[in-house]
Amino acid sequence: MTGATSIRKLPSLSGLHHRRNPLEDNPFFHPSDGFYITTSDVILAQVAYDLSAQSQSRVAYHRAGPRREIMYEPSAVKAAIVTCGGLCPGMNTVIRELVVGLWELYGVREIYGIPAGYRGFYSMEAVKLDPKAVHDWHKKGGTVLATSRGGFHLHNIVDAIQLNGFNQVYIIGGDGTMRGAVEIFKEITLRKLEVGITGIPKTVDNDVGIIDRSFGFQTAVEMAQQAISAAHVEAESAVNGIGLVKLMGRSTGHIALHATLSSRDVDCCLIPEMDFYLEGKGGLFEFLEKRLKERGHAVLVVAEGAGQEMIPRNESQKQERDESGNPVFLDVGVWFKSVLKDWWGREHPDELFTVKYIDPTYMIRAVPANATDNLYCTLLAHSAIHGVMAGYTGFVPGPINGNYAYIPLEEVALTKNKVNMSDHKWAWVRSVTNQPDFETNFKGQSL
Amino acid sequence: MTGATSIRKLPSLSGLHHRRNPLEDNPFFHPSDGFYITTSDVILAQVAYDLSAQSQSRVAYHRAGPRREIMYEPSAVKAAIVTCGGLCPGMNTVIRELVVGLWELYGVREIYGIPAGYRGFYSMEAVKLDPKAVHDWHKKGGTVLATSRGGFHLHNIVDAIQLNGFNQVYIIGGDGTMRGAVEIFKEITLRKLEVGITGIPKTVDNDVGIIDRSFGFQTAVEMAQQAISAAHVEAESAVNGIGLVKLMGRSTGHIALHATLSSRDVDCCLIPEMDFYLEGKGGLFEFLEKRLKERGHAVLVVAEGAGQEMIPRNESQKQERDESGNPVFLDVGVWFKSVLKDWWGREHPDELFTVKYIDPTYMIRAVPANATDNLYCTLLAHSAIHGVMAGYTGFVPGPINGNYAYIPLEEVALTKNKVNMSDHKWAWVRSVTNQPDFETNFKGQSL
Amino acid sequence: MTGATSIRKLPSLSGLHHRRNPLEDNPFFHPSDGFYITTSDVILAQVAYDLSAQSQSRVAYHRAGPRREIMYEPSAVKAAIVTCGGLCPGMNTVIRELVVGLWELYGVREIYGIPAGYRGFYSMEAVKLDPKAVHDWHKKGGTVLATSRGGFHLHNIVDAIQLNGFNQVYIIGGDGTMRGAVEIFKEITLRKLEVGITGIPKTVDNDVGIIDRSFGFQTAVEMAQQAISAAHVEAESAVNGIGLVKLMGRSTGHIALHATLSSRDVDCCLIPEMDFYLEGKGGLFEFLEKRLKERGHAVLVVAEGAGQEMIPRNESQKQERDESGNPVFLDVGVWFKSVLKDWWGREHPDELFTVKYIDPTYMIRAVPANATDNLYCTLLAHSAIHGVMAGYTGFVPGPINGNYAYIPLEEVALTKNKVNMSDHKWAWVRSVTNQPDFETNFKGQSL
Amino acid sequence: MTGATSIRKLPSLSGLHHRRNPLEDNPFFHPSDGFYITTSDVILAQVAYDLSAQSQSRVAYHRAGPRREIMYEPSAVKAAIVTCGGLCPGMNTVIRELVVGLWELYGVREIYGIPAGYRGFYSMEAVKLDPKAVHDWHKKGGTVLATSRGGFHLHNIVDAIQLNGFNQVYIIGGDGTMRGAVEIFKEITLRKLEVGITGIPKTVDNDVGIIDRSFGFQTAVEMAQQAISAAHVEAESAVNGIGLVKLMGRSTGHIALHATLSSRDVDCCLIPEMDFYLEGKGGLFEFLEKRLKERGHAVLVVAEGAGQEMIPRNESQKQERDESGNPVFLDVGVWFKSVLKDWWGREHPDELFTVKYIDPTYMIRAVPANATDNLYCTLLAHSAIHGVMAGYTGFVPGPINGNYAYIPLEEVALTKNKVNMSDHKWAWVRSVTNQPDFETNFKGQSL
Repeated sequence: MTGATSIRKLPSLSGLHHRRNPLEDNPFFHPSDGFYITTSDVILAQVAYDLSAQSQSRVAYHRAGPRREIMYEPSAVKAAIVTCGGLCPGMNTVIRELVVGLWELYGVREIYGIPAGYRGFYSMEAVKLDPKAVHDWHKKGGTVLATSRGGFHLHNIVDAIQLNGFNQVYIIGGDGTMRGAVEIFKEITLRKLEVGITGIPKTVDNDVGIIDRSFGFQTAVEMAQQAISAAHVEAESAVNGIGLVKLMGRSTGHIALHATLSSRDVDCCLIPEMDFYLEGKGGLFEFLEKRLKERGHAVLVVAEGAGQEMIPRNESQKQERDESGNPVFLDVGVWFKSVLKDWWGREHPDELFTVKYIDPTYMIRAVPANATDNLYCTLLAHSAIHGVMAGYTGFVPGPINGNYAYIPLEEVALTKNKVNMSDHKWAWVRSVTNQPDFETNFKGQSL
Repeated sequence: MTGATSIRKLPSLSGLHHRRNPLEDNPFFHPSDGFYITTSDVILAQVAYDLSAQSQSRVAYHRAGPRREIMYEPSAVKAAIVTCGGLCPGMNTVIRELVVGLWELYGVREIYGIPAGYRGFYSMEAVKLDPKAVHDWHKKGGTVLATSRGGFHLHNIVDAIQLNGFNQVYIIGGDGTMRGAVEIFKEITLRKLEVGITGIPKTVDNDVGIIDRSFGFQTAVEMAQQAISAAHVEAESAVNGIGLVKLMGRSTGHIALHATLSSRDVDCCLIPEMDFYLEGKGGLFEFLEKRLKERGHAVLVVAEGAGQEMIPRNESQKQERDESGNPVFLDVGVWFKSVLKDWWGREHPDELFTVKYIDPTYMIRAVPANATDNLYCTLLAHSAIHGVMAGYTGFVPGPINGNYAYIPLEEVALTKNKVNMSDHKWAWVRSVTNQPDFETNFKGQSL
Repeated sequence: MTGATSIRKLPSLSGLHHRRNPLEDNPFFHPSDGFYITTSDVILAQVAYDLSAQSQSRVAYHRAGPRREIMYEPSAVKAAIVTCGGLCPGMNTVIRELVVGLWELYGVREIYGIPAGYRGFYSMEAVKLDPKAVHDWHKKGGTVLATSRGGFHLHNIVDAIQLNGFNQVYIIGGDGTMRGAVEIFKEITLRKLEVGITGIPKTVDNDVGIIDRSFGFQTAVEMAQQAISAAHVEAESAVNGIGLVKLMGRSTGHIALHATLSSRDVDCCLIPEMDFYLEGKGGLFEFLEKRLKERGHAVLVVAEGAGQEMIPRNESQKQERDESGNPVFLDVGVWFKSVLKDWWGREHPDELFTVKYIDPTYMIRAVPANATDNLYCTLLAHSAIHGVMAGYTGFVPGPINGNYAYIPLEEVALTKNKVNMSDHKWAWVRSVTNQPDFETNFKGQSL
Repeated sequence: MTGATSIRKLPSLSGLHHRRNPLEDNPFFHPSDGFYITTSDVILAQVAYDLSAQSQSRVAYHRAGPRREIMYEPSAVKAAIVTCGGLCPGMNTVIRELVVGLWELYGVREIYGIPAGYRGFYSMEAVKLDPKAVHDWHKKGGTVLATSRGGFHLHNIVDAIQLNGFNQVYIIGGDGTMRGAVEIFKEITLRKLEVGITGIPKTVDNDVGIIDRSFGFQTAVEMAQQAISAAHVEAESAVNGIGLVKLMGRSTGHIALHATLSSRDVDCCLIPEMDFYLEGKGGLFEFLEKRLKERGHAVLVVAEGAGQEMIPRNESQKQERDESGNPVFLDVGVWFKSVLKDWWGREHPDELFTVKYIDPTYMIRAVPANATDNLYCTLLAHSAIHGVMAGYTGFVPGPINGNYAYIPLEEVALTKNKVNMSDHKWAWVRSVTNQPDFETNFKGQSL
């Protein structure tokens, strides 16, 4: 049971001077011996291993938290905060805690919000923020700074950072935003600017790798229960009723999977990581027919990215891209509603049948964070601050097995967290819903 | 200040015998003098009058509540309960209270639920109900009995009532269902059956006349706030963001109106009772442009029946009817989303713009009743029971100015509760949103 | 069916000049013919009558709403808003709507909040308010202006009103506050000041007369369900479990009564208007024993003012008064918990027994208003504004049978809304809970 | 970086025969290669280590999940489920999932609920359970099986297990219950019975060691926000207002700590692991005085076990024990309310001051589990089933760093999860609330 441990190096600013952490002088604080994190505090990323394996390679990350020495003179800090991409519960909590933490823990007084995403750097005026201004933002959904997709012009952005004299930049956004942050970090390195960059992954889909989960995800799973319950009630109150719920998840099915395991009203959960088919033996129609016969109703949860390749699309739809350059997704719920109706009308023309389709997307993502996510966003923001103040840059703060660590930004931007169809988590879903194993069925069918 | 009072006659069963109300013998009850309602207890329906008017005609209804004498031997009662049409918060509470009230107050033991609406009378087996079976139904959304649209075959239904020996029929449903109930009542009268019929109007839209409001309406207004808040957050978090919410209301805008007055996030409320126009002076686009300029965002609430005649429809859409024979409504929200995008793209091709459209219909109507509606459904059901046991038939129980009365079924079936655009309620909306008075504007524009 | 109608005269300011209502000039408004309220628009307060009665006296009030002429030059208005007494859901909505309505409808620009209740007039500095400041107050519980009990020094207050030049005073508070408002109104009349005074009754207990209900009451009933549900779960999960919930209501049991009718988990509801007794035949212990035997658990809802005279109190407790001069209430819940435990220990020393006592008072009264109350508070505030601007004074705005009217302040201050134990409403409770009729039982017992 | 890994041995039943897992034959299942857990799948319990350390000892546990072979013939299984101690969100979900999982995954048909805790084994009749009976239990708070404290008579219980022929016993309860389960496990081993025993720790306080957290804890933290918000509103709406919230946590402050980090309205959080003092320099009164001066209000969160040794108690209180033998806790909230009032009256006799005390305990613990806990309870129950069916006994299922493992029951019963005052988690609280470090202050003061 031996093997090397790779401890991931953290980029840091080199041109700054070490100075005493002002937490040291906070009369309430009395930092004790264990209070500060040292560079030898690291977090092991792997946790399970096989007794039969003879060796094992391990990855470790530096632990997040306050350092005994910092690299910025607080009065010289000029921080910028920006939110990009779609809404996600907790964005305002992160902003609020960045402001409050910088102000109250480190005494920073120059903190700015960049409005409306990346384009705000070069096309709008930054907004001055202080604890009073952000006082109750953690109770508001969305982002008070406003956000937008796209607008990433590297040089315009870095020029604006330079022009405004920002020396700390906190970037909150999805995977596209994180890839942009990597480019900003590289350009800043190239230009030899002493600007700390940190990225806080905002993806309600929980599709970011390495860290335990992304903020807003738990709130989304919680809110999704409302939609599933409504779909269940609609289905149960009808004759041969199907409740159909589309949940967020373009490339990964985490919300759908967790919402299914949290509710016990779901009969079948379809996610982008899984192939499925409708007709024939072991297909979805056969399964639904069986459930309708047994229970009189069924509830179907579909992640928005599931089955995209099955939906017929015309030429123009094949070319379309959204503002972030992602392929435009067709509405799998609308498609499903129509194929289900066609199927039933074909097979049972004289029997009642109802499909009620619920798309709760905006009602989920626009709510304030729940307690779990508020706590999480608070610790993320404070982790980010401690890291930046300590001179680290180009990193992402985040929990690994429950402990907060600093992870190189590039590593996070490159890693995707997909549902692993062959591991235990998906097995839970199958044992809980008893839904078909489409992939194996399909093989069986084609024999 | 004089004038005649017209007191509305209540139909009643003639062939039954008077007997002592068993409430009289309930050891906990001790009915005091004022406990029972007498036939001289009536409710005045009108409440406001004009000082300058010299005379006034008044309408009055008999008060709801237990009578000293009843007309059924409880052990001979065989009651049927049916729910028809779409879901509405509180349906299960009404069913539960009918069962519990008949059982516990009057000692009735034969109570049946008809499954899946009118068609259940002649095509499915009735389900025996008792207090244990319905115990926690008031905490469930939808209807445990299940429901469906259509299936109204008068003779099949009355034959089934006769065949099964039901002598009390409680019908819960919308306006189409109430018109069906009138026909059932007439056919039963024609066949000289001693069967008490009562209708409990279920219309989340609150479009039924005479009574103060319909059950489920307050819950719907409450739930609509969630959708409006989400739309507001989406709009505020975007650049030139419009939040668009479609609320229930095919022919009347009560939910949209009340939801608008309850929230202060709505910029404009459009309802079926009101004509509006998009382009030109005083039109919607001009108003939205102004709001976007002033506030950066706007929230639009649209009742589902608003603007139907403005949506282009092809020939087949013009012919289409739903199961209840109602014209199929096109989705005003989808249409609005598209015309808003077209408008902006035309007028401001280079500026960001976002429309987020939320259709919370099924998430609203599938929830359990809130406290206000649970209380209301309880009193409705108990009113219905007391009336039927006292031998009344062909009536609707309901509150008039806060007092419960019995109203002839036919009168309710014929009356529609529309928003009166010239009275004070709509004036409230206008003064609260400061939205355009399209009708007057239009006249002004065309001059 | 004849009789006189007494139309209540509304006090008004005499020294001001009539002028055109600025709503007339609002480009969005186009007030149509029926828009303004005329003095002949009145609301009949009575609604039910007895067919057998030969004559009837009626009371009518002037309808609330905008008048064609107003009595203040908007630029000369200096308005003060004060909140007194305990918290109640909706206070912030009323304040917000007063500010927004005065500002946007009438163009008033001098609006002040008096901090911390009556004492704020003479001991603290008034806070300038505008629509931006109050923007999201309707989503906050409590009162941002802060409140306190007591502090009513008539001359200090009127001196301060005079000194500050306030010519409109909006007073939000409970019955003690309303009595204070009457005194202020009289003193202002005596001093011949042209100051409009209006009182908006804030009593979560719903104990104010004439108007349909007080604001915050529906929200309180809704929130009370949470406590009752929890008590029910605790009771059901125990062996011989009793869930005991104390709800607000010092002299009236409206919240307890409505919460009981809204929930179906309550076995017995005790309110201040009702005498009850514990021991002996037909007493509470006998009833609870029966319920525990039948169902294994029971839920008891007690209004805070119920049974006060049964709780032993020592000399000092007999003298104690709160800041408003009200007698200090002993905690009926704590007392009940102890007598119940004593009783069971005495009667069934070897059997398990559990009482879980929940006092949700502060968790109920500190929440924001729900949709129903938000709408209500909005209409109340706007009614108040229209009345004051039209020159009325010494009045209370409020709905009577659903229509908003202006009622002389003194009349409201003198009227108490108690639960009428002999009318139909209480009969509903008894038929729904099947709880003992203690008063009749007691008479039976003593025979 | 080397060191031994101690892999914890799992007790198992020896007298049973291996047989094929029926999951193998489930047509929907198609267990793939990675589906079953093998004995070499273990979970490392430690995750952080110090770069400077040269060696390290590690603890590992066997992973939870289905095994390829099981040890029970499903038709021969007779399972008993019991819930003990106080309520906790999620108990019903655990019961439901045990029933549904045993029934649907393994085909077990003899499943019994033991009513009312340990005493139910020998004094009440077990209740037959099946999927239909438990259908919607996960939406109910409390435990439908009912629970009680105490009643642990080892021999009576094991005799009853033997007499009834139960060969699987699932015990859901707190730390006392787990210690009882260890004794039952030992007695069963002594008697050489082939009875699988598993314990599922139920402690809303999250005070159980080794596993990541206990079920119901997240729901409790979520619900606690309501109470904290209400306390904050009450405090803010008063002059010198203090909101005081007591949260669960007899020996550990996890709920208070997490609720504080989730809310940003808390000024000071007091927990049992921490000493604090009231008077003098660096004491609580000084801190509160400062906050009241700065902000006009303050919110105090106190875990129920905090400050117990500071509350004066009389002789009888010193002796008192609850049914589980735990020392009776005095109400720290009531005590605090009184010392705060005394303090203020002494220091500022002429200034207003208000303390509003909220004890939300029963309103928190009686709610159904939220989505996060429902998922967790589902996986716990299924983990328990797979382990017992595979022949393991005397174990606890639970997540370690997010992966489900089997832990020897005795190990769990002996371990207590306290808040570590010198690690990073408590540092978060201090940096977030900026509250005094009482321990260091105290040392400073006494110098």
